[in-house]
Amino acid sequence: MMKNYLLAPGPTPVPERVAAILGMPIPHHRTPGFEKVFSEVRAGLKWVFQTEQEVIMLTCTGTGAMEAAVSNLFKRGQKVITVNTGKFGERWTKVAQSYELAVLEIKLPPGLPFDPAILEEVCAANPDAEAILFQASETSTGSRMPVSDIVGLAKKYKMLSVCDAITALGVFDLPMDAWGIDVLITGSQKAMMIPPGLAFIALSETAWKKTAESDLPKFYFNLAKEKKAHLTNQTAWTPAISLIMGLHESLKMMKEEGLEKLFKRHELLALATRNAVKALGLDVLSAKSPSPAVTAVLVPPSVKEGKKIPKLMRDKYGVTIAGGQDELEGKIFRLSHFGYCSYFDITTGISCLELVLAELGHPVNFGAGVGAVLKTFADDEIKSGGLKI
Amino acid sequence: MMKNYLLAPGPTPVPERVAAILGMPIPHHRTPGFEKVFSEVRAGLKWVFQTEQEVIMLTCTGTGAMEAAVSNLFKRGQKVITVNTGKFGERWTKVAQSYELAVLEIKLPPGLPFDPAILEEVCAANPDAEAILFQASETSTGSRMPVSDIVGLAKKYKMLSVCDAITALGVFDLPMDAWGIDVLITGSQKAMMIPPGLAFIALSETAWKKTAESDLPKFYFNLAKEKKAHLTNQTAWTPAISLIMGLHESLKMMKEEGLEKLFKRHELLALATRNAVKALGLDVLSAKSPSPAVTAVLVPPSVKEGKKIPKLMRDKYGVTIAGGQDELEGKIFRLSHFGYCSYFDITTGISCLELVLAELGHPVNFGAGVGAVLKTFADDEIKSGGLKI
Repeated sequence: MMKNYLLAPGPTPVPERVAAILGMPIPHHRTPGFEKVFSEVRAGLKWVFQTEQEVIMLTCTGTGAMEAAVSNLFKRGQKVITVNTGKFGERWTKVAQSYELAVLEIKLPPGLPFDPAILEEVCAANPDAEAILFQASETSTGSRMPVSDIVGLAKKYKMLSVCDAITALGVFDLPMDAWGIDVLITGSQKAMMIPPGLAFIALSETAWKKTAESDLPKFYFNLAKEKKAHLTNQTAWTPAISLIMGLHESLKMMKEEGLEKLFKRHELLALATRNAVKALGLDVLSAKSPSPAVTAVLVPPSVKEGKKIPKLMRDKYGVTIAGGQDELEGKIFRLSHFGYCSYFDITTGISCLELVLAELGHPVNFGAGVGAVLKTFADDEIKSGGLKI
Repeated sequence: MMKNYLLAPGPTPVPERVAAILGMPIPHHRTPGFEKVFSEVRAGLKWVFQTEQEVIMLTCTGTGAMEAAVSNLFKRGQKVITVNTGKFGERWTKVAQSYELAVLEIKLPPGLPFDPAILEEVCAANPDAEAILFQASETSTGSRMPVSDIVGLAKKYKMLSVCDAITALGVFDLPMDAWGIDVLITGSQKAMMIPPGLAFIALSETAWKKTAESDLPKFYFNLAKEKKAHLTNQTAWTPAISLIMGLHESLKMMKEEGLEKLFKRHELLALATRNAVKALGLDVLSAKSPSPAVTAVLVPPSVKEGKKIPKLMRDKYGVTIAGGQDELEGKIFRLSHFGYCSYFDITTGISCLELVLAELGHPVNFGAGVGAVLKTFADDEIKSGGLKI
């Protein structure tokens, strides 16, 4: 018997009380009962997005919402700046190019903290650019981006700030309205704790105005049409009903915890993970700007085949983490710590990592990693008065 | 306590053994375990589509696959013929127009059997058209289209046949390869018996060649990219994992029944429904070309407010059917009889209809409708030797 554990940066584990709802009969979507659920989900999404704007639900995964942002905001041939510090930044470039926009890409090596000064230079040299397309958390490198700085530059240069927050929203604080983020995007299988199949996108007043001018072709991803439908608790097309029913429950769980505690939990789990890998003699890729969602760990020289770390963890012990993608394949592995994730998911992941590192030839003092996790938690509880030793 | 029954043409009811899987923990999609399920689902879809071609799974609803057909097959400014005999035919027109194709629309009043001679005239006058976009079953009018005739005309005039079979595939016989259908589309919440959130599209060799020439913008719906991924049991983007797990089970159910019995069941349930409404003194909208998926019934003159029929059935008795859409609102109501649907779903729907018609002032001889249903089933069983009276 092998128990399975999901510690990848999406899909994240679905809480039992949400899963139970996913196994229930689905209602028809054009009914008052579903509309009531939908209206509560709309309110819940506004709360998580920290916005007064409508949050649009699209039946697709995150990439679909990224495309929706591009195809709904811009006009043929307009110029945009993309920030590429990893695979998902690169995706912004590809999406914008597929609509033949004039794309100025800032491409930086993975793992370095993003310096807004570089972006400012590009903005200053290209005042005609319409928008900056960037990530809040670059999942491929476990890096947190300086969102408020980037949004500030967008405002200064009168550009739209278009933020892919797919592994960021509901993980750390991204107050859309307070910071003036123009477009904010996330997906269902991340901090929202439901299976993949829904994406969410919210637009500022300024961004909504841009959609009215856009002349790029679109049909399924028509944000203005969806907004109009949402205002009557409907969607333009049949939505992923079962996932919306699940979201209704997962939003309740998020509300029960509250945003402040939820963000603190993620910071703490991330810190514990970083402390553990350091205690095991490993280095974090984006050590100077680590994401609270996912920790990318450099494969140590002692391990010859880096790809074996996630493979052994999954195949021998049932613990699914993520490896590196593209040019980072075999060079890093990634431990996720957001969504339905708590203390003993971290000790499980690190326990498994210790066993696997030892098997692959890395010197391991068993318990050193898990000890560092527990010490991090204990320190936090002592600080808040929840633990007295 | 109100028990709820779903008799709408999508979403259709999810079988209990599928629902149970939807409530299970989801696997990560980049794992051998999921890839095994995915490969079996690929084989199952080819079986339902009756094709050797790859069936592409998209995380979206049916409209997304319709858009994918247009954006992946054509080049800027090309001419296409659309067949509009209802709301979903009209959707082909709108999708094609949103990509600025030159659209020749054949628009016909709802409910008439479609005469291929009209299409042939348009084809002959427009030999430069690239494709004919049409439905196999027009859900808004409960009409079955002459698919093989339309495909034959497409072949004759060297055009692609692009068939929205969203409420047809898995309902009645549509042998893709045998008939030479170039593009065949369906959605998850119809005969596939899982919740909405997946759409399926298969292309002939000829259609795949056209995708290589297409220059319309696309990113999320990139069929060539998806095909390449599918061949390694993957998807280009994170898929709706839970729905694919459910589909794995619903395809098993379809295989257990077999396509021949499945098609016969739908024909029988449709016939029973038509016999019942006739026995109650009502008329079927598309009486000369009724769809085996859904029966559209004309609101009788005795009922002043046609919209009240589906409303009362749902709100008072928990039976969700569909009303008419757009200009047919209040003029028809639609009883669905496909997917996870059998004898006593039909008797339930007709029982409820009898009560509601009586309440709304239509003269009802209680049991007349249900009696006609039972007589239809009995006649069928007698014919096959399963019942001796």
